[in-house]
Order: sequence, then structure tokens, then C-alpha cells
Amino acid sequence: MNFCSACGNPVIQRIPEGDSRPRYVCPACHTIHYQNPNIVAGVLPTWGSQVLLCRRAIEPRRGFWTLPAGFMENGETLEQAARRETVEEACARVGSTALYQLFDLPHINQVHVFFRAELTDLDFAVGTESLEVRLFEEHEIPWEALAFRTVTRTLECYYRDRIGQQFPLGHEYLPPMQVSSST
Amino acid sequence: MNFCSACGNPVIQRIPEGDSRPRYVCPACHTIHYQNPNIVAGVLPTWGSQVLLCRRAIEPRRGFWTLPAGFMENGETLEQAARRETVEEACARVGSTALYQLFDLPHINQVHVFFRAELTDLDFAVGTESLEVRLFEEHEIPWEALAFRTVTRTLECYYRDRIGQQFPLGHEYLPPMQVSSST
Repeated sequence: MNFCSACGNPVIQRIPEGDSRPRYVCPACHTIHYQNPNIVAGVLPTWGSQVLLCRRAIEPRRGFWTLPAGFMENGETLEQAARRETVEEACARVGSTALYQLFDLPHINQVHVFFRAELTDLDFAVGTESLEVRLFEEHEIPWEALAFRTVTRTLECYYRDRIGQQFPLGHEYLPPMQVSSST
Repeated sequence: MNFCSACGNPVIQRIPEGDSRPRYVCPACHTIHYQNPNIVAGVLPTWGSQVLLCRRAIEPRRGFWTLPAGFMENGETLEQAARRETVEEACARVGSTALYQLFDLPHINQVHVFFRAELTDLDFAVGTESLEVRLFEEHEIPWEALAFRTVTRTLECYYRDRIGQQFPLGHEYLPPMQVSSST
């Protein structure tokens, strides 16, 4: 951030009065520009014993497999965001949803939220952000080619929980990776 | 938003290629300025049968009672944000936390997240954003003077759940209010 989005003058970084953190502040119009974490919402779509995954057509992690998920937009609920991403990436619709996994990723200023939901039908297709969309049995999951750690952890929790058919809400902190650029 | 925070030129609103929503876009440097929901994180701090509330010293809802809560900052986990707000507003520390209530407030582009936690001691005090901080028994709760609906709902759920000592995660959508400016 270099310029004030309100008045166009150059911003400076300082700790506003009564605050404890440096913020981008406009010396001209005195607007304080807060920067806050983003929410990524997604779905683990199931069809009987199978799980739907999308192969990403866009960076980051192009060519890797993901659960349908993306940035929550203003004006949406978590569930609406998760359903919209499922439509956009997999042209797929799901029935009732259950909140399933929350992840804190403070090193990238994100919180990820995944719902579980059964597909309403098999009329899914390759969305504009995907190269390929298909159903996987557990033994077919491309564990080494998953796009993001939160996808891996959500699937791991799902296959663990599916044994006992109990799917308690999980909440995990994921620290920075030691290697590579995968979140 | 009037100006590009990257280069300072005036922004326009248009739907970027491959997108479906109008965004603020800079015609000069082509930066797309996304705007996304914010997370508010807080704690329901308990001390035996009592709950700690803070009377707000700042707008909105100055003079009304709230659970310690506020905007999650970059670089924090949900729990860290909730603990920080508890320190800032009530100079209070809590022990282990349990995720308790999630609220979608799409009309104000917010998601609220409340944890339950027991105070570690009674060394709380009035934080800079509070006029008063005190413990309440259930019959003392100032229901008509609570600051926000998510505080009211979290307390309602707590007193309901406390009867059976089961505190399942709750997730609610709160539509716009018909009256007043309380969120």
C-alpha cells in the first residue's frame, strides 16, 4: 500500500493513537487503512463412498487437485461462499451442509472453513478454474498431488471420521511450511 | 474507494475478465482491489457460575455491555485474536478455550467467532476500550443493554447449554435488523 484509497495522497506507516500496531495512515485525510485476514470457504462434496476433487487450472498450484474452495465475498454467508465455489469450480450442487473443519493459517493471514455435503446429482462438470473434475474412492486419492495442506488435512480427517460415522468439528493451526510454496 | 492504493491513480468499478462481480480496478497499473469479509473473534469468559462482561467505552454501542471481542488481525489465529481482545478490553486472561459459536452477518460483511473459556484468576480490570468490567450471575445479565446480537445469542446459547453441560458448536445466520443500528 502506497497511496490512500480515499483521497489519493501517499500513506505513511504509524501506530494510531489508542492502537498498538503500525497501520497505513493518510496524513492528508487521516483515514486509517486496516488490513485483516481473509476467509477461504469450501466443500468436501461426497457421492456415496466417493469424494469430488478438482484439478486446478489456475495458479497457485496449477495442475494439483483441490476441494472446491475460494475466498469468501462480501455479502455472503460461509455456506453461500462454499456453495458458490462448488458451482464455479465443479459446476456441482450439494444438499445440506455440515460445518466440518476450520484452519488457522496466520502466516498467510487466512482462515479456511470446510463443510461436508453430499452432491445432489452427478451433473458436475469442469468449471472455468478447473482442468478436470472427478470422483475418487479413498484408495484413488492423489495424496502427493493435492494442492493445499488444508485440503490434505480435511481429507485425512474425513477418512478417519468416516470409520465411526462421527464427524466432529475440527479446528487446527497450520504453521508455515518448511518447504515449497503450498499453503 | 476512490484511488488505487498501489499507484495513486483513480480507480474504476468493473467486472474483471473471468470474474463475475464488479471490483475496484486501476486502469493505470491494472491492480484489482478485492474487498472481503472481516472476522470478529471473542471470548465468553466464565468464573464458576459467573460470566464476565465489558461496558463499551467506544462507538458503536458506547455504554452497552459486550463480551470481549474485536477484529482479528493479520498474523493471528482465531484463538490468539480472541485472547488479545480479552486482555485489551478486560485485562483478563483465560485458560484453555473451546470454539463455541459462529455467526454469519453478511449484511455487514462479518463473521463472528466466540470461544468459551474460564478465567485463570480474578485479576481483571477496566481496559482502555471499556467503561466497566464485571462478573454477572445469569439473573443479573443486562439483556436489554447488550451491545450486539451475537453477544445476546452467545449468552442465550450458553445458558441453554449449561443446563445439560453440553456445549456443541453453534453456527447461525443473523439477517439485518429491522430496527436500530445494533449489529
